[in-house]
Amino acid sequence: MATPKIVSALAPSAFPDLPVIPGVSLAGGAVGIRYKKRSDVMLAVLDEGSSVAGCYTRSLTASAPVDWCKAAGAKGRVRAIVVNSGNANAFTGSAGVASVEREVAATAQLVGCKKHEVFVASTGVIGEPLADDKIVAGLPALLKAVKPTGWKAAAEAIMTTDTFAKGATATALIDGVPVTINGFAKGSGMIAPDMATMLAFVFTDAAISADVLQHELTRATDRSFNCITVDSDTSTSDTLILSATNKAAHRPIKDKKDARVKAFRRALEAVLTDLAIQVVKDGEGAEKFITIRVTGAATSKAARRIGLAIANSPLVKTAIAGEDANWGRIVMAVGKSGEKADRDRLMIKIGGVTVAANGQRVDGFDETPVAAHIKTRDIAIEVDVAIGKGDATVWTCDLTHRYLDINAGYRS
Amino acid sequence: MATPKIVSALAPSAFPDLPVIPGVSLAGGAVGIRYKKRSDVMLAVLDEGSSVAGCYTRSLTASAPVDWCKAAGAKGRVRAIVVNSGNANAFTGSAGVASVEREVAATAQLVGCKKHEVFVASTGVIGEPLADDKIVAGLPALLKAVKPTGWKAAAEAIMTTDTFAKGATATALIDGVPVTINGFAKGSGMIAPDMATMLAFVFTDAAISADVLQHELTRATDRSFNCITVDSDTSTSDTLILSATNKAAHRPIKDKKDARVKAFRRALEAVLTDLAIQVVKDGEGAEKFITIRVTGAATSKAARRIGLAIANSPLVKTAIAGEDANWGRIVMAVGKSGEKADRDRLMIKIGGVTVAANGQRVDGFDETPVAAHIKTRDIAIEVDVAIGKGDATVWTCDLTHRYLDINAGYRS
Repeated sequence: MATPKIVSALAPSAFPDLPVIPGVSLAGGAVGIRYKKRSDVMLAVLDEGSSVAGCYTRSLTASAPVDWCKAAGAKGRVRAIVVNSGNANAFTGSAGVASVEREVAATAQLVGCKKHEVFVASTGVIGEPLADDKIVAGLPALLKAVKPTGWKAAAEAIMTTDTFAKGATATALIDGVPVTINGFAKGSGMIAPDMATMLAFVFTDAAISADVLQHELTRATDRSFNCITVDSDTSTSDTLILSATNKAAHRPIKDKKDARVKAFRRALEAVLTDLAIQVVKDGEGAEKFITIRVTGAATSKAARRIGLAIANSPLVKTAIAGEDANWGRIVMAVGKSGEKADRDRLMIKIGGVTVAANGQRVDGFDETPVAAHIKTRDIAIEVDVAIGKGDATVWTCDLTHRYLDINAGYRS
Repeated sequence: MATPKIVSALAPSAFPDLPVIPGVSLAGGAVGIRYKKRSDVMLAVLDEGSSVAGCYTRSLTASAPVDWCKAAGAKGRVRAIVVNSGNANAFTGSAGVASVEREVAATAQLVGCKKHEVFVASTGVIGEPLADDKIVAGLPALLKAVKPTGWKAAAEAIMTTDTFAKGATATALIDGVPVTINGFAKGSGMIAPDMATMLAFVFTDAAISADVLQHELTRATDRSFNCITVDSDTSTSDTLILSATNKAAHRPIKDKKDARVKAFRRALEAVLTDLAIQVVKDGEGAEKFITIRVTGAATSKAARRIGLAIANSPLVKTAIAGEDANWGRIVMAVGKSGEKADRDRLMIKIGGVTVAANGQRVDGFDETPVAAHIKTRDIAIEVDVAIGKGDATVWTCDLTHRYLDINAGYRS
């Protein structure tokens, strides 16, 4: 497959080593959906007995694959996940629904499972018919190619405008038994809650029932993917699927209140946060990674809304791209969030330096350290709105000329 | 004053001829607030007996001048309006409040009126102390300079990153007596409801009481400035003031239900819409003017929210900048608006050509006329969401490299 020519300035040095997860095999391959000689289909096959949970876009124009996954997910079982890049199969009407049905039927037959154990996702251009025949024709070769070490190939196959493949891993001990959580994701436009990433697939060997998985996935998503934004646009295809092969030798967790789930919870949140941050770091055209910490809000939800108002403000994002510590625009964004803030007690720090307190610029403010910080790749903004105790952390990136270059010519 | 070097591609050929309005005199001058040798203060003086109404930003971090105008506006009388560009006097704490007080006191003394008859507005950088002493020192010369024909000079003095001065005029007949409405406005970043423009000042010789003026202004604003967006950012300083000198010879209108107000209403809406569209056409970096008509929504409010979701989508705006009729992104924006839409009955037209109907691309779609339309400066998007009878029209511009150039270096 072709490696993108320009890699994000914020990219990690390499795709992480993801360990084998018993019961999961994956492969990526090129079937010519849209890109030429580029990997564009991913197949993950899971052993019998695997449970599944999902979080999906809240868009009211969700794609046909999302509709399918939501319905299939109710059964809580998974044997195969098929994902293509290059075409989102969104707003494709009844033709799109038929594409999903053919893709699912072919996969179920090939893998030897029920249709509702097959999950599909598509990412890429919206509104054009999906060449599902190419995917179906490519499935036998993919099934032959799947292997327990196929993580990177799988992660690469789901990329669209992503400039690097995104993977993360963590382990947890349940009853003293180590379990692994691996995940991979793709961005990198239309990134905004809720859901933030377009596609993410997470796998574990832990033995956890579907309803507990769903509970944990929803919680962790709220604290990771739902706290990031690149451009405030919400995809019609956002899909996050967590599959558990139940192969680990601990006693299965079947109850949400089972205290043993806590270690898993921490590891899951770590993997999702790692992936979410990688999605931001591959935000289209991103040159700076921005962490926004909001404290003193009425509630945590209010804090997140304020953080996202700052994160989504084109004026804040362009100021940071221009290495201008224009904190006045942060004030503006707090004001437009619609959430309570005490204008005359507002505190703003940039790079750990207090630039404004009690509603105005600090006396004798020395911009030197802030100007130095704003020239780095990792920007920290802290805002205290002095109303209550709600807090949240939100991650975003700057808005650069390359974002426009990428998006003004995506289809062509 | 210095004329900006780059003028918006969408600018009108000239500032319109605004007729004299009996009882109004205006001037603009340079006092060195921020720009060198550029007009940066505007003074409008009104005869005794003038009534006033205002609409202000809903930002929860509104500026000190906005706080002042809201309070003064309750009395419904106006004798002077002082506006500076270059500094917004926003998030300036108690120092900002004191600046307003000095500015108002000096103006009231000079003009010979009550303090609550003085309105002030400031636009420009946020969070830096306002050099109100320079404004106060400049007031006597401005008062000498005011004249009934000072419209263009006034409009130019309130510009910040605007590339052209924005004016509009209309007339109406009340009791057979012609009345005039003149207005001028400035944009051109932080343009989003509610309020859309940063500053707009509208004057009429009609004899209308303050409460009727307020009623009409609120209504017309909702159908004009609150339907435009450039970058979704809401200013802390948005101010729209409508003053009436009551000089026209018709019997005064003192009751909201007085049928004679209708002609005035139409003319006022025409002036505000004209100004609002000029603000969009001077949207920072704008190269294309985009009209979005939404029909079939649950309510008019829902239609406007859908329209604004489309108008604010960076992906829609960059696609149009790139002359790509990427209607899939319009679908995405409809979906993220949170308002009801029937995905499988959605209809989208671009340039009058139906590109999608019944939830998918039209059969045998020929992109040629749409591709030709998208290369023009005036883009028309129509969306029917097939739910109800609510409709709205929203105006915006594309998102270009120049927006980034302007905003990445605004303070420097």
